Amino acid sequence: MGVNSNRVEDFSSHETSIRIPSTNTISPPMEIHSVCLPPKKTTLQKLKHRLSEIFFPDDPLYRFKNQQWCKKLILALQFLFPILQWGPDYNLKLFRSDIISGLTIASLAIPQGISYAKLANLPPIVGLYSSFVPPLIYSILGSSRHLGVGPVSIASLVMGSMLGEAVSYSQDPILYLELAFTATFFAGLFQASLGLLRLGFIIDFLSKATLVGFMAGAAVIVSLQQLKGLLGIVHFTSKMQFIPVMSSVFNQRDESMRKPKLFWVSAAAPLTSVILSTLIVFCLKSKAHGISIIGHLPKGLNPPSSNMLSFNGPFLAVAIKTGLVTGILSLTEGIAVGRTFAALKNYQVDGNKEMMAIGFMNIAGSCTSCYVTTGSFSRSAVNYNAGAQSAVSNVVMASAVLVTLLFLMPLFYYTPNVILAAIIITAVIGLIDYQAAFRLWKVDKLDFLACSCSFFGVLFISVPLGLAIAVGVSVFKILLHVTRPNTVAMGNIPGTHIYQSLNRYREALRVSSFLILAVESPIYFANSTYLQERILRWIREEEEWIEANNESTLKCIILDMTAVTAIDTSGIDMVCELRKILEKQSLQLVLANPVGSVTEKLHQSKVLESFGLNGLYLTVGEAVADISALWKAQP
Amino acid sequence: MGVNSNRVEDFSSHETSIRIPSTNTISPPMEIHSVCLPPKKTTLQKLKHRLSEIFFPDDPLYRFKNQQWCKKLILALQFLFPILQWGPDYNLKLFRSDIISGLTIASLAIPQGISYAKLANLPPIVGLYSSFVPPLIYSILGSSRHLGVGPVSIASLVMGSMLGEAVSYSQDPILYLELAFTATFFAGLFQASLGLLRLGFIIDFLSKATLVGFMAGAAVIVSLQQLKGLLGIVHFTSKMQFIPVMSSVFNQRDESMRKPKLFWVSAAAPLTSVILSTLIVFCLKSKAHGISIIGHLPKGLNPPSSNMLSFNGPFLAVAIKTGLVTGILSLTEGIAVGRTFAALKNYQVDGNKEMMAIGFMNIAGSCTSCYVTTGSFSRSAVNYNAGAQSAVSNVVMASAVLVTLLFLMPLFYYTPNVILAAIIITAVIGLIDYQAAFRLWKVDKLDFLACSCSFFGVLFISVPLGLAIAVGVSVFKILLHVTRPNTVAMGNIPGTHIYQSLNRYREALRVSSFLILAVESPIYFANSTYLQERILRWIREEEEWIEANNESTLKCIILDMTAVTAIDTSGIDMVCELRKILEKQSLQLVLANPVGSVTEKLHQSKVLESFGLNGLYLTVGEAVADISALWKAQP
Repeated sequence: MGVNSNRVEDFSSHETSIRIPSTNTISPPMEIHSVCLPPKKTTLQKLKHRLSEIFFPDDPLYRFKNQQWCKKLILALQFLFPILQWGPDYNLKLFRSDIISGLTIASLAIPQGISYAKLANLPPIVGLYSSFVPPLIYSILGSSRHLGVGPVSIASLVMGSMLGEAVSYSQDPILYLELAFTATFFAGLFQASLGLLRLGFIIDFLSKATLVGFMAGAAVIVSLQQLKGLLGIVHFTSKMQFIPVMSSVFNQRDESMRKPKLFWVSAAAPLTSVILSTLIVFCLKSKAHGISIIGHLPKGLNPPSSNMLSFNGPFLAVAIKTGLVTGILSLTEGIAVGRTFAALKNYQVDGNKEMMAIGFMNIAGSCTSCYVTTGSFSRSAVNYNAGAQSAVSNVVMASAVLVTLLFLMPLFYYTPNVILAAIIITAVIGLIDYQAAFRLWKVDKLDFLACSCSFFGVLFISVPLGLAIAVGVSVFKILLHVTRPNTVAMGNIPGTHIYQSLNRYREALRVSSFLILAVESPIYFANSTYLQERILRWIREEEEWIEANNESTLKCIILDMTAVTAIDTSGIDMVCELRKILEKQSLQLVLANPVGSVTEKLHQSKVLESFGLNGLYLTVGEAVADISALWKAQP
Repeated sequence: MGVNSNRVEDFSSHETSIRIPSTNTISPPMEIHSVCLPPKKTTLQKLKHRLSEIFFPDDPLYRFKNQQWCKKLILALQFLFPILQWGPDYNLKLFRSDIISGLTIASLAIPQGISYAKLANLPPIVGLYSSFVPPLIYSILGSSRHLGVGPVSIASLVMGSMLGEAVSYSQDPILYLELAFTATFFAGLFQASLGLLRLGFIIDFLSKATLVGFMAGAAVIVSLQQLKGLLGIVHFTSKMQFIPVMSSVFNQRDESMRKPKLFWVSAAAPLTSVILSTLIVFCLKSKAHGISIIGHLPKGLNPPSSNMLSFNGPFLAVAIKTGLVTGILSLTEGIAVGRTFAALKNYQVDGNKEMMAIGFMNIAGSCTSCYVTTGSFSRSAVNYNAGAQSAVSNVVMASAVLVTLLFLMPLFYYTPNVILAAIIITAVIGLIDYQAAFRLWKVDKLDFLACSCSFFGVLFISVPLGLAIAVGVSVFKILLHVTRPNTVAMGNIPGTHIYQSLNRYREALRVSSFLILAVESPIYFANSTYLQERILRWIREEEEWIEANNESTLKCIILDMTAVTAIDTSGIDMVCELRKILEKQSLQLVLANPVGSVTEKLHQSKVLESFGLNGLYLTVGEAVADISALWKAQP
């Protein structure tokens, strides 16, 4: 790779070729620096570096470096089971905090579990089962200290709507349950594999904008479904008063983070409503026969359900699809919530490890009569504000649910279904974040478009298709930016070596005989034709302007390549062709500050050679100084 | 949009707030410049600007500016019919050149037309029809002077393979013809719509790498198909000698551009072979009965075929799909060929206008018994080298084909089919550009991957799916670059204000107490999590390095935002959160040189305010100088 034809410098034979131009018209005299190639690497080294950046950006094994083997073993066990990390330091003071927060989230978890299970068209008891086993598993495997684990509204309603299209629970409850547990198994498998294969970045493609729209659309669907139930009992008006009460309470999701002292209102409201409404129905039971109640719930612990997982039959595709969609949605919520609270307390959660924890928790859940669970936003917020210190609060919650399952189930006999519908509606209405949508509109119109697409797609088409469309719009946004990149004409800020946009900085001045263009995107197949046309149009317009203003003729085009962070073969061909076209018009093309990989590729494809000695500079300033000095020397 | 909380400057109230720091540790004293917001624009103005950049990057109406209405009318007519532009200046000298080149390409077009029609499983006569009407239409509407119009191998073989899967020509020739004309109609409609809607950039997504792989794969398929025909007549060995002859001739596609004097070899070879082989078969006709010959071809002009277009029935989907795929492939070839020769003669072809010309030509063709045509590479190269001056050479070629159709058809009676197979094989073998594939491997491994995917996809799966996979790989490449962007630690080049990669420039020096990172990508939902993790890892590693080397502690992180060409709401949240995390670690986060749109969005979302007075600088150099001066002032 012997480089000598140009001012490109090979890092391995490091000899700077500084040249001082004789004269200088624009700025004080300056040295001219060489453009270096990046250090030489073999294809294998490059591949290794690239793969480690793709799959191990956080360098997860850095703790293991320079350690003895027994220390390494302990670190490995701690890596696999975070409980070994914080367990030894655990003390009574922390435990007291965890007991309080654990009991608080249990009071939220019991009514939520029953309601969300109904949202997924599952028997209410499955919701309680799902608040028992998964939190225990998470407390062993999970790395977040504040995540409150249990069923969540989005995954529940998606499961209900997707499975409901294939099978009706009322007609074939056994098949429906089988499908729900199978879907949960696949959700867990998918989540654990994403973590194991370190493909966690896939969930990044569900952008926040997409999720805002998706949640609002899903909330509207669910509310409409549940309203049917509510409207069926309008004659029983006394109960309707709970709705405004609770809607004001539940809508404080965000406020519960801002005003920690009020958190107990949102935490206690559901259980209070359930207790009150159950008491009222119990007292009125002889008079109001029309009220639909939960009825008998079986006592006892989670029964095993591994025999209900079915991996064949005509509904396998539905189960897999539901598993994938609920899996990715619950993963997104769980990871986002974990990260949010970790950032508040300034510790790190490892995304890929969290995925494995959530995945194994769901696989175990699918064998113990649980449906899809994850880190829930509302539970975690309550948990955090109640002073949770570690995953032990999840153990406490699970114990409270255990007691409920073993002894308290008969108490729920008279709980009216309408209160569950109300809990569901208030919970999902809180998902409609119109302020976030408004902010999207204000700051980024294309983000707002993705948000609207997912809202209307979910509302009018279907959950997976709506999501797919929204992800498509988000990806389209990236592609649009690459396909139609910005090009900026730059000028010199007098007295400095700074070159900035002429349009943006009024003090920036055109440099006569030069046209300095910054290309603000990688040069790829998708934009090379556009960029060529656009650059030629810049030149045409510049020449028209020069003619109209009797300025000195254009002689040199400088492309500032700082923001051209990558180039492919089409891009290289474009640069090459552009140079030829400009040469025919007696215009010189100069590249300034190409980044490492671009310099390397231009060098490999022998394009740099054709640029000659005065075709490549480290900065725009040096290019202008050196070339104008040359022109003075040979007029 | 009153800006004052920061050193962001509003362009409308243009008051520079230059401040000179008291002392300076790193580089000579410097002024500190403000970061400007871009000029204010309403949402509508921004949308208009964005749309005009997306759909009218070449500003096609610039000729119409500041013109009188009658001049405008003439310009509009010239715009619609380029023939009006060059027609008036046309003279006898140009005509003489065009006659020679027109006759030359006719001698290529006649055997090519017959062969390519066979490649598409169509009657040979359709290939001749397709070399008559479309060139005439193109000469009126087209803007390229050198494009030789006619059927091309890729579109022919794709049409043959895609239609052949649904209908067999031998079993139902009428239905097959109907489908072919209907597909041609849809191809034309699609092409013309792309041009009318100015969506021409869609064809850019078929990158050169994809096409190299696709053409090679398609060539292998066709060669294998045709070899069957060739191997069936191995006893007639004398004819086999043509193959090496012609393969050496046809493979000179690229050479015909490099050695113009040899162009006539490739131009004349097919007709010579046809004439020679026809003569041989004619002489041997009593002895060699086993030789398959073309047989009777109907005399006369293109019969109308608009009655054969069928827009219903079970095969409509096949026709539309074939139309789309052949349409986009032929468009890609036509536009690329037009641009290549325009660049050689230094004139512009308007991509969107070319699409309309090719589209209307195919719509007209579908009504006059023609199948898909476009600008063919081989014909155009011959045309160019034979000295074509304008689209009149296409008219001359069409006239020659007209004479053939009217009077010379009986001469082809004894032309052996094997010579057509030989012409096809030699033509498509020329499509296997292993040198280009090797260059892709050398310069860009991911381009090579896209190339391989399209090769194997077309070979082993199917034409549309293979293409779709290859486009998917190309898009994945863009997304990968965005999902895992590069971050570079930078240092100061002593004695300058230049900051460059520490890894690449050995003379660059770390600035103590600072960590300067350049982010080389827009900050989007797809990479915001990664970037946050990666930046925190940079900081962790820097602090470890500082501890190991007893350097002064890290106090400030500067993000060089020059290459961050866009940001979305997730990106803004990331920057905001990163600032908070670093604040908790007593580290200051500073942004240097954000581009216009990024500054604007950070400002709109009130994030800039949280950065305070010393959080935003125009250059890394000014940030380092100003902040270290501040530290000296308040130790």
